[in-house]
Amino acid sequence: MCQLLGMNCNVPTDICFSFTGFQARGGTTDTHRDGWGIAFFEGKGARLFLDHNPSCESPLAALVRHYPIRSLNVIAHIRKATQGRISLENTHPFSRELWGRYWIFAHNGNLTNYEPTLDGSFLPVGQTDSELAFCRLLQDLRQRFPAGMPPEEALHAAIDEFAAQTRRFGSFNFLLSNGDSLFAHRTTELHYIIRQAPFPVAHLMDEDMTVDFSEVTTPNDRVAVIVTKPLTDNETWHPLPVGRVTRFHNGAPVAWQPVKSPPSAEAR
Amino acid sequence: MCQLLGMNCNVPTDICFSFTGFQARGGTTDTHRDGWGIAFFEGKGARLFLDHNPSCESPLAALVRHYPIRSLNVIAHIRKATQGRISLENTHPFSRELWGRYWIFAHNGNLTNYEPTLDGSFLPVGQTDSELAFCRLLQDLRQRFPAGMPPEEALHAAIDEFAAQTRRFGSFNFLLSNGDSLFAHRTTELHYIIRQAPFPVAHLMDEDMTVDFSEVTTPNDRVAVIVTKPLTDNETWHPLPVGRVTRFHNGAPVAWQPVKSPPSAEAR
Repeated sequence: MCQLLGMNCNVPTDICFSFTGFQARGGTTDTHRDGWGIAFFEGKGARLFLDHNPSCESPLAALVRHYPIRSLNVIAHIRKATQGRISLENTHPFSRELWGRYWIFAHNGNLTNYEPTLDGSFLPVGQTDSELAFCRLLQDLRQRFPAGMPPEEALHAAIDEFAAQTRRFGSFNFLLSNGDSLFAHRTTELHYIIRQAPFPVAHLMDEDMTVDFSEVTTPNDRVAVIVTKPLTDNETWHPLPVGRVTRFHNGAPVAWQPVKSPPSAEAR
Repeated sequence: MCQLLGMNCNVPTDICFSFTGFQARGGTTDTHRDGWGIAFFEGKGARLFLDHNPSCESPLAALVRHYPIRSLNVIAHIRKATQGRISLENTHPFSRELWGRYWIFAHNGNLTNYEPTLDGSFLPVGQTDSELAFCRLLQDLRQRFPAGMPPEEALHAAIDEFAAQTRRFGSFNFLLSNGDSLFAHRTTELHYIIRQAPFPVAHLMDEDMTVDFSEVTTPNDRVAVIVTKPLTDNETWHPLPVGRVTRFHNGAPVAWQPVKSPPSAEAR
């Protein structure tokens, strides 16, 4: 299994503090030594740092920890391989372009006997169940909305439906972003916190490091952090609801009720 | 205009020396201050480092210069913006997946009145003529070879034909790789060198830096370096032929004569 870390904000924010605790789990305080990666959206562009070495030993991780990249949406992943060998092409997050936007995806879980039909529009480069699911998701989205990005509600419904179909094959915690919203899906373990004024002094579990967010933020800042296991030992983390996709936008979950959506391509 | 740097090798090789001279042109010895990027293939995986800050000031460029990433195929680019604002989404190289392989593309030049028809299978995220041409190239390739990657000769012919169609719109020096071969196309300026035993002592033009390649190689190593302007002042660089695509494989250009290829999708 792996661990996921995501951030969604209303103003571009750096993830140095949370990433410091998270990357320690890539071989120091935990056993996720089989590679790591992090993606930052900056406008419509995305920066993706991937390394198949343990994050605790990676000079690239040290750079990410110390070089503040401000972003509205970040997805990071540390890997403990289940399917697919330890190699760069099997390192999360994965990236593809759909509708002229980059999409970033990372998965924690294990899908078994998962053999979706692919039409060639998105094909996995590596051997993971995760990249396979990501390709199938994008194929479904393009098929359903051939004219381009639909309104956020319709997009949310389609991703929720895909998640429901796919979690039948196993554990399927994932983070997904198009740079605008961050979609989070939990089947086993995924927590979140909203940090906003009055900002806390937070202390990492995995390193003896404290940050007073009130010193590095403005009163209107709002940041959602989503992570497999809570990162701090003096804040209240909330478990994400199971069995539905949560969309984070501007640093908070968006209220949404699934409505009956049109049948999927496969069910038609 | 911009500058391009590519490397194609028969054994995984680091590009620290060449990149040191190249990145100095991103604001120190030359004026290409509008962002830079570099992509390394490692197996089927690719690492892409992008920065819209000048490479001479970038902590990321410093990391790439000092952290030897060994790769068979590398493409780097420093930008002086012609079309598209200075932003991450307009920073080369660009990356897409086709046939379950990553493709990396960087362009030096300027295409005017270039408005190819896109069917939506690959769409630009930014506003550059370069990313537009890359999307159209991949669309053409997928249309022509829907069953997957064709033999290298057929692939070479199709890319050569695309280059011929596209250079009618302006200067179109580009580097393209799928991790196996590196394709280079010159309309105005592009040079290459093959380094192999007996290896030279090379001295950079842009920094006072010398490397004795015989100390860091084995006798069977062969490395092709392709660059807009020669990087060293004591080696003989060759201009690439104009008006045809050269394919580099295992550190050398592959002999190839264009044969009459089937008509393109557009001409049918």
